[in-house]
Amino acid sequence: MKLLSFEHDGRPRIGVLHRGTIVDMTEAVPGRKLGMIDLLKMGEAGIALAARAETGDAPRIPLEAVRLLAPVPRPGKYLGVGGNFESHLQEAAHLGLKRPQHPIWFNKQTTCVTGPFEPIHLPRVSTQLDYECELGIVIGRRCRHVAAEDALDVIAGYVVCNDVSVRDWQLRSPTATLGKSFDTHGPFGPYLVTRDEIGDPQTLRIRSWVNGELRQEGSTDEMLFSCAQLIADLSQVCTLEPGDVLATGSPRGCGGLRQPPVYLRAGDVVRMEITNVGVIENTVIDEPDRIA
Amino acid sequence: MKLLSFEHDGRPRIGVLHRGTIVDMTEAVPGRKLGMIDLLKMGEAGIALAARAETGDAPRIPLEAVRLLAPVPRPGKYLGVGGNFESHLQEAAHLGLKRPQHPIWFNKQTTCVTGPFEPIHLPRVSTQLDYECELGIVIGRRCRHVAAEDALDVIAGYVVCNDVSVRDWQLRSPTATLGKSFDTHGPFGPYLVTRDEIGDPQTLRIRSWVNGELRQEGSTDEMLFSCAQLIADLSQVCTLEPGDVLATGSPRGCGGLRQPPVYLRAGDVVRMEITNVGVIENTVIDEPDRIA
Repeated sequence: MKLLSFEHDGRPRIGVLHRGTIVDMTEAVPGRKLGMIDLLKMGEAGIALAARAETGDAPRIPLEAVRLLAPVPRPGKYLGVGGNFESHLQEAAHLGLKRPQHPIWFNKQTTCVTGPFEPIHLPRVSTQLDYECELGIVIGRRCRHVAAEDALDVIAGYVVCNDVSVRDWQLRSPTATLGKSFDTHGPFGPYLVTRDEIGDPQTLRIRSWVNGELRQEGSTDEMLFSCAQLIADLSQVCTLEPGDVLATGSPRGCGGLRQPPVYLRAGDVVRMEITNVGVIENTVIDEPDRIA
Repeated sequence: MKLLSFEHDGRPRIGVLHRGTIVDMTEAVPGRKLGMIDLLKMGEAGIALAARAETGDAPRIPLEAVRLLAPVPRPGKYLGVGGNFESHLQEAAHLGLKRPQHPIWFNKQTTCVTGPFEPIHLPRVSTQLDYECELGIVIGRRCRHVAAEDALDVIAGYVVCNDVSVRDWQLRSPTATLGKSFDTHGPFGPYLVTRDEIGDPQTLRIRSWVNGELRQEGSTDEMLFSCAQLIADLSQVCTLEPGDVLATGSPRGCGGLRQPPVYLRAGDVVRMEITNVGVIENTVIDEPDRIA
């Protein structure tokens, strides 16, 4: 199934996609107003509810009539990992990036999350704007100390993430935090594809284009630490919760790692696709004067 | 004023402390149930509400009758900075910590937040448990691109933070993320002291003790980047929101930076005090088998 968050008539809603139309699930539980995290917290019951909605006779909203939000518009946590693809390590070798012994976790601030077709801001304070296409995991079950062999069970589903990065700010600190955290630099979507539709997450093709030019092409089979290993590693430390998002690393082809670097500019269109997960597309605009 | 989050009769509440008793503000706005972030989002109106509650004739709860929670039990963001105290840079020189040109921001996962007198877990996966006493800023106003000279205006108030750190996991990655993020490793409180009670945040004495032995003694005047400069730096990147917490760095005296290192063990009691902000005290226990 494909679960969505969207805005319709100015209000945030959730739903399930069925044959190109959306079945609104926001009021699927009497007396409550469901957000995506609420639905995920229901676990199997939430999935069953979505399955019933999908085939039921509730009114449908055409996909074109809504504005898609990130499937989880405000996750509790949003972490990414650096240097998790062999080909990316090679292209970044001149920056001193070495094959890591453990996953290199960093946070994207949750305020950076934006919709799958929303603009990305070229910051006032930098010109070194770059893209990274990554498979995103959305956690479906509250958990800690998950063994790698059980880890796929705690996944609700997958999304396409653009781990937008501001390279000079990323390199200002070994922690990389600020360069990953600018407002609008966390687009993901287009929907949450439930894990039953994906099966093995380590065989997916990842591609990205800038203005139609293919820039990244790789496969999740390149990952040094698999989705399951990443969850096992992180959950030794902290409780994972429904709606938490983990971006699992990017293959080669980032503009900022070309020699000489090619950064994104206002007007550029960044399109990303992962097999069976979907497509997101974001246009770069100059950062507006006012905060949203 | 001193704003608190607490549990009473098993339910989460907020209130204001007045002469050793708590005035419950959870239902101060008809038809709503207020949490601390809701109150902070009300801005000046929220502060005025608390001021009226403090001197009103609402029923009071003795402080001893409640369990204190972190004043913001689940902040939207919780970031810390590394290497922000001259004396801490000196003691960490042997680890290669150098005087930073820019603040070294990292995230503590928001799931690590716990109350000011709650236990700290000695993780199953490490013995290198350490403490860091720090002044915490709680943001009071949604903002971005705040100039340093205006930055104190966006602060709601201050808390005492124990930036509990697991040194081996911190050093596993240059990003330090996991070592700062274990469950229960973010105690703060005891209450949110509004900024009018603190005035200049750069003249506060910071002390911590382990089992009654003074371990850290410093002053916020040592900070390389002041509270105002930290807010200015971070807000160039991301929108800050009411309830966001920023831990501003620790002076010398961490056990793990002694030579040889002295780590915390089960049974140790860690007490921290910052002038006019208050005291927190947490006991180390072995990580339980079940997640809370």
